[in-house]
Amino acid sequence: MADLIDRLVELVGTGAVLAGDAIGEEWTHDEALTAEAARPDVVVRPASTEQVGAVVALAAARGVPVTARGSGTGLSGACIPRAGGIVIAFDHMAEILELDLENHVAVVQPGVTLEQLDAATAAHGLVYPVFPGENSASLGGNVATNAGGMRAVKYGVTRHQVLGIEAVLGTGEVVRSGGKFVKSTSGYDLTQLVVGSEGTLAIVTEATLRLYPRPEHTATILAPFASMEAIAAAVPRIVGSGIDPMVLEYIDLVAMAGIEAASGIELGVDPDVRAQTLAYLVVVLEDRSARRLDEDAEELALMLGELGAIDVYGLPPQAGAALITARERVFWAAKANGANDIIDMVVPRASIPTYLARVAELAAESASFIVGCGHAGDGNVHLSIFQGDAEVRDRVLHDLFAAGVAMGGAISGEHGIGSEKKAYLRELEDPAKLALMARIKTAFDPHGILNPGAIWDPEVMA
Amino acid sequence: MADLIDRLVELVGTGAVLAGDAIGEEWTHDEALTAEAARPDVVVRPASTEQVGAVVALAAARGVPVTARGSGTGLSGACIPRAGGIVIAFDHMAEILELDLENHVAVVQPGVTLEQLDAATAAHGLVYPVFPGENSASLGGNVATNAGGMRAVKYGVTRHQVLGIEAVLGTGEVVRSGGKFVKSTSGYDLTQLVVGSEGTLAIVTEATLRLYPRPEHTATILAPFASMEAIAAAVPRIVGSGIDPMVLEYIDLVAMAGIEAASGIELGVDPDVRAQTLAYLVVVLEDRSARRLDEDAEELALMLGELGAIDVYGLPPQAGAALITARERVFWAAKANGANDIIDMVVPRASIPTYLARVAELAAESASFIVGCGHAGDGNVHLSIFQGDAEVRDRVLHDLFAAGVAMGGAISGEHGIGSEKKAYLRELEDPAKLALMARIKTAFDPHGILNPGAIWDPEVMA
Repeated sequence: MADLIDRLVELVGTGAVLAGDAIGEEWTHDEALTAEAARPDVVVRPASTEQVGAVVALAAARGVPVTARGSGTGLSGACIPRAGGIVIAFDHMAEILELDLENHVAVVQPGVTLEQLDAATAAHGLVYPVFPGENSASLGGNVATNAGGMRAVKYGVTRHQVLGIEAVLGTGEVVRSGGKFVKSTSGYDLTQLVVGSEGTLAIVTEATLRLYPRPEHTATILAPFASMEAIAAAVPRIVGSGIDPMVLEYIDLVAMAGIEAASGIELGVDPDVRAQTLAYLVVVLEDRSARRLDEDAEELALMLGELGAIDVYGLPPQAGAALITARERVFWAAKANGANDIIDMVVPRASIPTYLARVAELAAESASFIVGCGHAGDGNVHLSIFQGDAEVRDRVLHDLFAAGVAMGGAISGEHGIGSEKKAYLRELEDPAKLALMARIKTAFDPHGILNPGAIWDPEVMA
Repeated sequence: MADLIDRLVELVGTGAVLAGDAIGEEWTHDEALTAEAARPDVVVRPASTEQVGAVVALAAARGVPVTARGSGTGLSGACIPRAGGIVIAFDHMAEILELDLENHVAVVQPGVTLEQLDAATAAHGLVYPVFPGENSASLGGNVATNAGGMRAVKYGVTRHQVLGIEAVLGTGEVVRSGGKFVKSTSGYDLTQLVVGSEGTLAIVTEATLRLYPRPEHTATILAPFASMEAIAAAVPRIVGSGIDPMVLEYIDLVAMAGIEAASGIELGVDPDVRAQTLAYLVVVLEDRSARRLDEDAEELALMLGELGAIDVYGLPPQAGAALITARERVFWAAKANGANDIIDMVVPRASIPTYLARVAELAAESASFIVGCGHAGDGNVHLSIFQGDAEVRDRVLHDLFAAGVAMGGAISGEHGIGSEKKAYLRELEDPAKLALMARIKTAFDPHGILNPGAIWDPEVMA
């Protein structure tokens, strides 16, 4: 090990290697509620792609596990290091290399944060439209987990913005894929394969990201409903109208109470209306024209009335922004309130009510408390599970995932599998597909050193 | 071989197997101008995924090549069978299995054509937004080549619409990936990997496709420019304005003359203006509101004036539609005029003028005639190459691809590599990436039976 550290110091410099007691607690965990922290043997902070390649090549030669780490804001344990392994941290590779205003792309290093990119693009009237809710998150981490967020109903998720990457394979080789263009049929799409692979196929050292014009005006509309069925029925009507909402969220009664308590927002909902409400639909519209935005907001309000909303509130700008911010922070509210776990199942959006009915049954059967909110426009259901007994919780989680998969869904919409959901993936996914994925993993990482223990256990791979 | 045919008849029925003289000329080619036709030993027309799986499993056991075929409208030779191989044709699997209006998706079999899906979605005010120019093309073929077309600047290409697939691996195993949702981080994205892989990784037997609201109103604006530089400079301004064009095409002088001659369109461009014009920019806007469309068209016309358009013409609806149709048919005009080859290089869109300047040099140096048009909004340059000497043409093509790759581009934006561009890919692509792709190919197709000879030669793979 001492020898490994010496070699790493040769590769990246003394100041960029942490070992032993110099490795603080902050390197040992992400934000997953259930994951056990683990201390790596060494943390390296490379300054260039060449250094990343050299570190990975060394690790490959020695058979030492390597885990890439951005801001550590993940929710599934994907960047928790393996004991005895190397963490490659990207805080020294955090530069926006290029804002290309002609091609509308940003070229970034993996340590660049969402808020850093947002400030840089805003200055040019542009936006990188992925807002997963934690703006200190790094883009490397976003690419690794295919981060989503509330604006996916309009813009898609990280996958849809990544036009190209530079990445280091498990051999230490550096490859580039894609570029400053939205289309290519010139061999296999390695970019899309690496996006969402949670650091198990390659380590992304540069990403070319798509930018969009940033509309100046937004409006937030809040509509209380008496049932999830009515909300789910409203969604295709709203999307199909062509009004193109930027955000289309549902928030259940309890989650909204938590949001209100945590943020102190006053939504102005009439007490009589509240008494009938089971869940809220929140719609955010955006437009470059204030007049068109007003017209659309009015059209939407009428539509919501016809679709069974108990009432419709156009929130004042400050309250609207506060509600969206509080919704983005709902994970922290759940954590503060003692949630034992959170999940982000995805199902076909029209199946949300059926799925939530099943969730209610599972909660009742297991004496768990399960509440949440989610992306009504794209079927991504975020649930907080309050169940202190780990064994019962494990069974509930299994049943929650199994129910969603049976409806044609997937275990995670945007958080990823990481270390925390891999047992469920193994149980619920088609073995032929898992075997295929394992062969793909080997194609990228023949020595099995890239983030072993994320998505599946190395022994399952073999 | 007789025994193989007997076994195939057992699997799919007598009526669904063609062999010997029963295999007509129509099975031997696609629309690539340069590819040599080849006759398969046998054509099977399965009626179900299970039959496809059984045929592939049999082929794998015998080591017989298998080439999937949709409508045969490809432009790169990807569905030309290998002599001695099996063609799996999808004309008996051509059903729209589901139009899901709640989730806004269509579930289709691979033999469904674009025009079939367009008619079905139009009836519900929805649209599948990929229009690669040939509406008899099959969706299986579109998925295999990641088909693009003029609307990519707004909607993206086939890749962005494919939410899920069912596919048969080279082992005969059937896997499903994705589903009726736009986001998932639950293992590797096999869907995106198979899209654009030209039948070399898996044979798609079902696709779940995203649908959009179909805006009722469109406007076509034609702007003659004196230089490609001015057109390229206008594009980011138009896209950045938020006006969200559906189509943003450039057409060079000669290509426009060909379009006018072939279609008989009268564009009403003033002769004085024509005399100064080097290329045209064509913009199509769409909106659900006629008033907003008019406003945007007016704003765009003003913008184009400021951006150096010599004049701006709002085309009457019929002329606008005719121009777009003629543009879609430009391949046929080039073919009729004796073009020896066509290519669809993609470069960063701001590099189009530099690239076209290099094209002009290469044309002059080699005494070739090279003209074209392309997707100004996404950097996809379509060129017709008139050069009868195959050896000279090969050198010109090589130089055209090399110049674009040096600018950060890719060999094909939407036609694919197929059999016709593979020598250039092999020469210009990073060997480490080709080796990685070959390992991925083996992960899907361990016996190397799926469309060998497309993208690269089997001997390169080994």
